[in-house]
Amino acid sequence: MRSPVNRQITLAARPHGNPKESDFQIVQRPVPVPGDGQVLVRNVLVSLDPLNRILMGNANSDQPPIALGETMFAFTVAVVEQSNNPAFAVGDHVAGTTGWQDYAVSDGSDLRIVDPDIAPLPAHLGTLGMTGLTAWVALTVLLNPKPRGTLLVTAAAGAVGSAAAQIGKLRGYRVVGTAGGPEKIRHLIEDLGLDAAVDHRAPDFTEQLAHAVPDGIDTLYDNVGAALFPALLPHLNVNAQIAVGGVMSQITRTEPFTGPDHLPDLLRAALYKILTIRGVNVTEYHGHSYPEFLADLAPAIAERKLHYGTHLVQGLETIPAAFTQMFTGRTAGKMIAQIS
Amino acid sequence: MRSPVNRQITLAARPHGNPKESDFQIVQRPVPVPGDGQVLVRNVLVSLDPLNRILMGNANSDQPPIALGETMFAFTVAVVEQSNNPAFAVGDHVAGTTGWQDYAVSDGSDLRIVDPDIAPLPAHLGTLGMTGLTAWVALTVLLNPKPRGTLLVTAAAGAVGSAAAQIGKLRGYRVVGTAGGPEKIRHLIEDLGLDAAVDHRAPDFTEQLAHAVPDGIDTLYDNVGAALFPALLPHLNVNAQIAVGGVMSQITRTEPFTGPDHLPDLLRAALYKILTIRGVNVTEYHGHSYPEFLADLAPAIAERKLHYGTHLVQGLETIPAAFTQMFTGRTAGKMIAQIS
Repeated sequence: MRSPVNRQITLAARPHGNPKESDFQIVQRPVPVPGDGQVLVRNVLVSLDPLNRILMGNANSDQPPIALGETMFAFTVAVVEQSNNPAFAVGDHVAGTTGWQDYAVSDGSDLRIVDPDIAPLPAHLGTLGMTGLTAWVALTVLLNPKPRGTLLVTAAAGAVGSAAAQIGKLRGYRVVGTAGGPEKIRHLIEDLGLDAAVDHRAPDFTEQLAHAVPDGIDTLYDNVGAALFPALLPHLNVNAQIAVGGVMSQITRTEPFTGPDHLPDLLRAALYKILTIRGVNVTEYHGHSYPEFLADLAPAIAERKLHYGTHLVQGLETIPAAFTQMFTGRTAGKMIAQIS
Repeated sequence: MRSPVNRQITLAARPHGNPKESDFQIVQRPVPVPGDGQVLVRNVLVSLDPLNRILMGNANSDQPPIALGETMFAFTVAVVEQSNNPAFAVGDHVAGTTGWQDYAVSDGSDLRIVDPDIAPLPAHLGTLGMTGLTAWVALTVLLNPKPRGTLLVTAAAGAVGSAAAQIGKLRGYRVVGTAGGPEKIRHLIEDLGLDAAVDHRAPDFTEQLAHAVPDGIDTLYDNVGAALFPALLPHLNVNAQIAVGGVMSQITRTEPFTGPDHLPDLLRAALYKILTIRGVNVTEYHGHSYPEFLADLAPAIAERKLHYGTHLVQGLETIPAAFTQMFTGRTAGKMIAQIS
């Protein structure tokens, strides 16, 4: 099913806090024509990410927002429809950043050919895409990759979280996840095979957490970025390492953080527990680390051991509503819209 | 001048907040007699460190305190008086951990022979001792040792701080220090040769800081551990690295830290600025890194380029009063008592 025009989702208003459907507008433009050295791609799958909220503006982030009226940035899987670039043939599947729209032209520099036969197409946006690469770089390059003991992943049912949890299991960690609600907890245990999972909404969260990490936490992959951190600190072991992979609890927050001040606790823990804390950013590893990442996961891919956990919605027009749901904690896994 | 008895400073009471002279008792015991394989050392210099406060108990620390009535732990420089150990000759100068007392016996495992000719004896407790090694390990092993841009050192007039600042200068950093009061600021600029220094007590501290780091902070060596951190965060550059070397502002604190909560700010900075944060602990590097450390500093030592900045007090009996002054910010450099 191909759209005869290029529908684009543009930014209509900058949200405060959670995004609303009315922050977006769907416009129709002609299908673009590729120039010399360019390709025309038809987007098949487009990704919905916390990054999109950041790019809308008024978020707790250093990242500059996009302009009002601009088409929303998005990670995508697309098919090459026309090619004036010898590196791409018509019919190739590519992963890129071609936005929340039906069509895009590109000089190819942001496109990577993907093999649709090694895994379902949505996997190339999730565990086998930038999302998985991010988790892999954090656990392989940024932190000491020699696994020992317990890896705790927050928001483990989320896109990066589920990739981190599964890579941790493949490495030999004991993996514990946090998530919100019984269905996500079931998913972590039964689908992803985690060793334990703790519901951060449970009234006895603190006790559940202590029970889930009896030998403490050796590696922490945090995607939440404030809300759970103070509860996790006392469980960190000496020489623990922390990947700060996301600040989901902060992105849409509009009130200031009141006290008590937990920064002194973190600094004291950093000193006495000899912590290593690293912010995760995949940008500088994107180009050269991808083949190594894919080779590392190849056996697990071949044995169908990876769970891709995507939340698929149908149609470009459903994106604004689906996107707003991501911020109310009602979805698990990588949120993807199939648009053709 | 040798004491005919072994005077020992013991812990009489556990302080709340700042230590008091009455928390200590000076007792007299016979000079101990070394057994097989042991040496008797006479302490010449004993070090007064924030660690001593931690070991007194009721401190914000994970380190277990010493027992009431026990002799205070201390880093020392001593002379071998009797030796039943072939590794040590009578008259050797040694650095060790032989306590706030006149004499000690040791099997030698905590002693390291020092050369009194390469630098003044007090230097072997400060910049050339564990203090300097701590700063060196942080800047050489724990963080990326390739210097670039600006190194900011908090409590730069303190023992570890002045070592870190000087090592930073030798490496080629632009070094900026913080300290309290005009005399310490003068010391940082005129004696240690820092590029800029900021008085954290000044009413326009924030403006002074911004002026002192016009190109941001690339490496932060923090010894304060809470009080200044929120003001420094906005100046950290992308890919900045942070050594958490001390939490001086927390050790004697008795009130809880009220809001706002700055932990979310740090986690957000860690993510978006791709920070690396490491707790500094010298213990595991102590044995094997010392020769490399000394060799690295040897040219600077030979050229008399290092400033040892010790604050020397005379006599074992002055230690309780001198120690309490460390916590009111009235001293600079490494505090040492000469006791024989």
